[in-house]
Amino acid sequence: MIGIFDSGFGGLTVMRHIQALLPFEEILYFGDTARLPYGDKSPKTITEYCLENSTFLVEKGIDTLVIACHSACSVALSSLRVHFSIPIIGIIEYGLSEIPQDAKVIVILGTRATIAAGLYEKRIHARFPEAEILPIACPLFVPLVEEGYSDHVVASLVAKEYLRPLREKKVDAVILGCTHYPLLQKVLEQELKDIPLIDPAAACALALAQMHKPSGLNEAAPRHTFYVSDHPEKFRTLGEVFLQEPIVAIKNVHS
Amino acid sequence: MIGIFDSGFGGLTVMRHIQALLPFEEILYFGDTARLPYGDKSPKTITEYCLENSTFLVEKGIDTLVIACHSACSVALSSLRVHFSIPIIGIIEYGLSEIPQDAKVIVILGTRATIAAGLYEKRIHARFPEAEILPIACPLFVPLVEEGYSDHVVASLVAKEYLRPLREKKVDAVILGCTHYPLLQKVLEQELKDIPLIDPAAACALALAQMHKPSGLNEAAPRHTFYVSDHPEKFRTLGEVFLQEPIVAIKNVHS
Repeated sequence: MIGIFDSGFGGLTVMRHIQALLPFEEILYFGDTARLPYGDKSPKTITEYCLENSTFLVEKGIDTLVIACHSACSVALSSLRVHFSIPIIGIIEYGLSEIPQDAKVIVILGTRATIAAGLYEKRIHARFPEAEILPIACPLFVPLVEEGYSDHVVASLVAKEYLRPLREKKVDAVILGCTHYPLLQKVLEQELKDIPLIDPAAACALALAQMHKPSGLNEAAPRHTFYVSDHPEKFRTLGEVFLQEPIVAIKNVHS
Repeated sequence: MIGIFDSGFGGLTVMRHIQALLPFEEILYFGDTARLPYGDKSPKTITEYCLENSTFLVEKGIDTLVIACHSACSVALSSLRVHFSIPIIGIIEYGLSEIPQDAKVIVILGTRATIAAGLYEKRIHARFPEAEILPIACPLFVPLVEEGYSDHVVASLVAKEYLRPLREKKVDAVILGCTHYPLLQKVLEQELKDIPLIDPAAACALALAQMHKPSGLNEAAPRHTFYVSDHPEKFRTLGEVFLQEPIVAIKNVHS
C-alpha cells in the first residue's frame, strides 16, 4: 500500500501519474488541508507537520511513502528518512534527468519555502556544476491555481513579473518545483516559448513503479482513500480538478 | 491588558486603531501564522483554532479579547463567548452605523468562510430589513495584499472580476469584511468610485475604548508583545507593513 502525503491538493497531480503506472496498487492520500499552504511557513513548522502526517500514514500500514509536496520535501526529507524505516520517495529527487545535458542556464520555480531550502539548487549544482542556476520563488501561483485563475490574464501578468529576471537570459530548462505549476503550463509556455518545462511528477512515479513490489492482492482497480485534516467535502471539488477523476472516499483524520 | 487574536497579519490593522485610542494600554497580539489563512477553512477547524488561541491569551492574563479576524469572528464568536467569561469584542459587530440610513443595496466583501457563515448578512438584514444585501467572496485579495500586489494592475483585474455582479447595481455601501481589504482601498475606489467603503476596524477600536477600564499602571507607551505560532522572524517584515511601525518583541507560542 502506497502512502502519498501533500500539504493539500497539489500531490494529486503526482498521484495521477502513480495510478497510471501502478493501477492495481492501493493508495492512501493525505492532504493537510487544515494547515495548508506550507510554502510560506518555516522549516521547523513544516517539518513538524510532515512528521505528524507521515506517522499517520505509516500507522495505517503503508509500505512506501511518497512526499508529493516540494515544500515539504525540500525542508523535511532527511528528517523523515531518519525517522521512518520504510522507503521514502521525495518528488524533489526526480526530473533532473530531463534537463538537457549541455544546459548552461537552469531555472527553478517554487514556493518561498522550496527556494529558501536550496535543496533543488544543491542537487542541480551537483549534476551540472558549470551551469548557472536561477531559483525563483512564485508565491502567488498556488492561490491563482486554486482559485481557478490558471488560464486568466491575471496569471499571465503574475508570471511576467516573476519571470522578469529571465528576460535577458538564454534559459535551457525550467523545473516546475511545485505540484501546482503544471496547471499553469499554458501561461508559462506563452512566457517561456520553447524552453523545456520539467515536471518531476512523471519521473517520480516511474521511480516508484520501478522499486515498488506490487502487493499482487488486487485484481481490479482498488478504491483509494483520501484523508484530510479539514472538512472532507471541502476537498472534493478542487481535488477532482487536480486528480481529473471523481474522488469517492474522503475521511477526516480526526474522526 | 488587551488581547487581540487574528489568523496572522490582518489584525494588526485593527491594533493600529486600538493603539491610537488606548496608547497606555498593554496589548498582547496573537497571530496564528503556522495555520493561516483561515478564510478557506471549515467552521469546525476555524472554531478549534480560535478556542486554542484565545485560551493562550486568556492564560496570559488579558482582561478583554478582541477577535480581529472576520473569518474567525463570523464562525466562532458565539462559541468563544460561551467558553470564556471575559468581554469579547468581535470586529464583525461594528461598522454598521456607518452605512447610510437610507441604503438600499449593501455589499459585503469577505473571505469564503466569512461569506458562507452569513453572520454579516444576518446582522445587516436586522438593521436594514428592506435593503438588498450582496455578499461577495474575494479569496484572492488576501494573498495579493500579502505578496505586495495591493497597487498592482493584477489587483485591479481581480477586483474587476469579483465586483462584476455590481456593474448594473446602484450600490449604497460596501463593507470591507476582511482586515486585509483596507490595504486595497485605492484599487477598490477605482472600481467603486464614490460608494462609501466601510472598514469596521475604527468603530471596533472605539467600542473597545469606551468599554475598557484602563489599568492606569502605565505612564509611558507600553511595549506590546506579539505571539506567533510560526517562526517569529517571518512575522516581522509583513507585520510592519500592516502595523506601520516597528515590531520589537515577537515570540513563538511554543517556546
